[in-house]
Amino acid sequence: MDPTDSATPCFATTVRVAFGDCDPANIVYFPNFYRWFDQATHDLCEAAGYELTEVRRDRGWVGFPIAEAGARFLRPATINDRLRIETRIKEWRAKMFLLEHRILRDGTLLVEGWQTRFIGVRLPEHGGRLSPLPLPAGFKADMERMMT
Amino acid sequence: MDPTDSATPCFATTVRVAFGDCDPANIVYFPNFYRWFDQATHDLCEAAGYELTEVRRDRGWVGFPIAEAGARFLRPATINDRLRIETRIKEWRAKMFLLEHRILRDGTLLVEGWQTRFIGVRLPEHGGRLSPLPLPAGFKADMERMMT
Amino acid sequence: MDPTDSATPCFATTVRVAFGDCDPANIVYFPNFYRWFDQATHDLCEAAGYELTEVRRDRGWVGFPIAEAGARFLRPATINDRLRIETRIKEWRAKMFLLEHRILRDGTLLVEGWQTRFIGVRLPEHGGRLSPLPLPAGFKADMERMMT
Amino acid sequence: MDPTDSATPCFATTVRVAFGDCDPANIVYFPNFYRWFDQATHDLCEAAGYELTEVRRDRGWVGFPIAEAGARFLRPATINDRLRIETRIKEWRAKMFLLEHRILRDGTLLVEGWQTRFIGVRLPEHGGRLSPLPLPAGFKADMERMMT
Repeated sequence: MDPTDSATPCFATTVRVAFGDCDPANIVYFPNFYRWFDQATHDLCEAAGYELTEVRRDRGWVGFPIAEAGARFLRPATINDRLRIETRIKEWRAKMFLLEHRILRDGTLLVEGWQTRFIGVRLPEHGGRLSPLPLPAGFKADMERMMT
Repeated sequence: MDPTDSATPCFATTVRVAFGDCDPANIVYFPNFYRWFDQATHDLCEAAGYELTEVRRDRGWVGFPIAEAGARFLRPATINDRLRIETRIKEWRAKMFLLEHRILRDGTLLVEGWQTRFIGVRLPEHGGRLSPLPLPAGFKADMERMMT
Repeated sequence: MDPTDSATPCFATTVRVAFGDCDPANIVYFPNFYRWFDQATHDLCEAAGYELTEVRRDRGWVGFPIAEAGARFLRPATINDRLRIETRIKEWRAKMFLLEHRILRDGTLLVEGWQTRFIGVRLPEHGGRLSPLPLPAGFKADMERMMT
Repeated sequence: MDPTDSATPCFATTVRVAFGDCDPANIVYFPNFYRWFDQATHDLCEAAGYELTEVRRDRGWVGFPIAEAGARFLRPATINDRLRIETRIKEWRAKMFLLEHRILRDGTLLVEGWQTRFIGVRLPEHGGRLSPLPLPAGFKADMERMMT
């Protein structure tokens, strides 16, 4: 994965750290970063025309499950921090896409994460098991148009 | 609601407080108590023959939603505390049942909570809205049998 | 507690329901409402000049613990709902204040909650136990000024 | 990282999936796996003589923060699943240790995760910043003794 700098186009959202997101060490309890990665991904999908409730109802998709994930925790975040989440798509495969998330506070990188996701469906021919759908035509372009 | 003492029959479960359940004040972040009340209720229902996955699949129930809830937080709990959760059913109505939960550590009462729950269904005649089912015959007896 | 209508001055915040806030019944998992009540309270305190990190560092307060709480769940919320949280202070006591939270979607009331809170301190004369501080002069006026 | 099979000694714990751990796709909401990895690590540390509350109080450690983490999600888990968590230490460095977690249901591998952790301290000479402590003598042996 190439190094990213903040000049590369991205989809940006923000999150504010709540008291209840922090642990007895007075820093964000790390699983919450994954919640925010997830929310940023859903926000990106919604902006691109793939709002979760709609794709579940209208297209029969289960959602955008994760196959692999990773993160580096460089600096902690704490109560009431305003965090910027930059989301970029680093790679497209036939049935998978690789997202990169960067969490910054006042321009300082705190956390880098990446996730391989797919469009999840439960097809009768797979016995109802959660399986990846080949990415539909237009999906890549719709998502990349949101990177500014 | 009559005062309860620990001699009254109850359904008892235990929970261990995790680091991540605690907040920067070094005590359990209070919404987690509601997670544990919920889990204790599901454990009771399962013991009584109403396991959630089964009733969702076999009876078309959505689950056991909450109509009203309350809690008194008397003393805090902290990392690695072993908590005892005592669950009792205090009142039966036609479509509702009132649960009481008491959380104790080494015999000391920390939290008292109560919840009015119902069996949730989504019926076509209610436009698919989440509605209470009249409590089925045997449900009360099945649940009370678990109080020892 | 007097009935409240939306014309009564309040402190208003918003929250957007995330996919991960919802449960297999496709509705908000109810303990999350308590997280949002908590965040709304912290937002109100911050607006009134009592930001949590500051009062912990500068005044030695632990935070704003909860003594009692209650809620009525009237209608469910689901993925991507934009919720309005109205917070009002219904009663002032010497060491306690009673908050009311109302959660609305498009003007429809979904959840009503109330919480009795105090300013928590750990004083040597109480053996370091979490205790309520008499509410300081100006606290009530500072908080009420935020109700608009 | 060498492939692991279940015959390799490990520290094993169990977790039961709660209703509230699952999302509208009816499977475990993935950030919860990180909570369980974390709890398994704390359980291992406690078994080895490094209980979190004690090391925080007696040794001035903040805890066991995470520097890097990763996971592969092979198969979903759902409500009431009984999961086995196998924890192994794969590598020791001067100030870091690499943990591997495997989550299984009835012998089937569902999730593989790994985390690089350190002993966190806040030293005056580092301006109070969260920093890694050189792993103390005996720590490695104490931890490895728990792998059976």
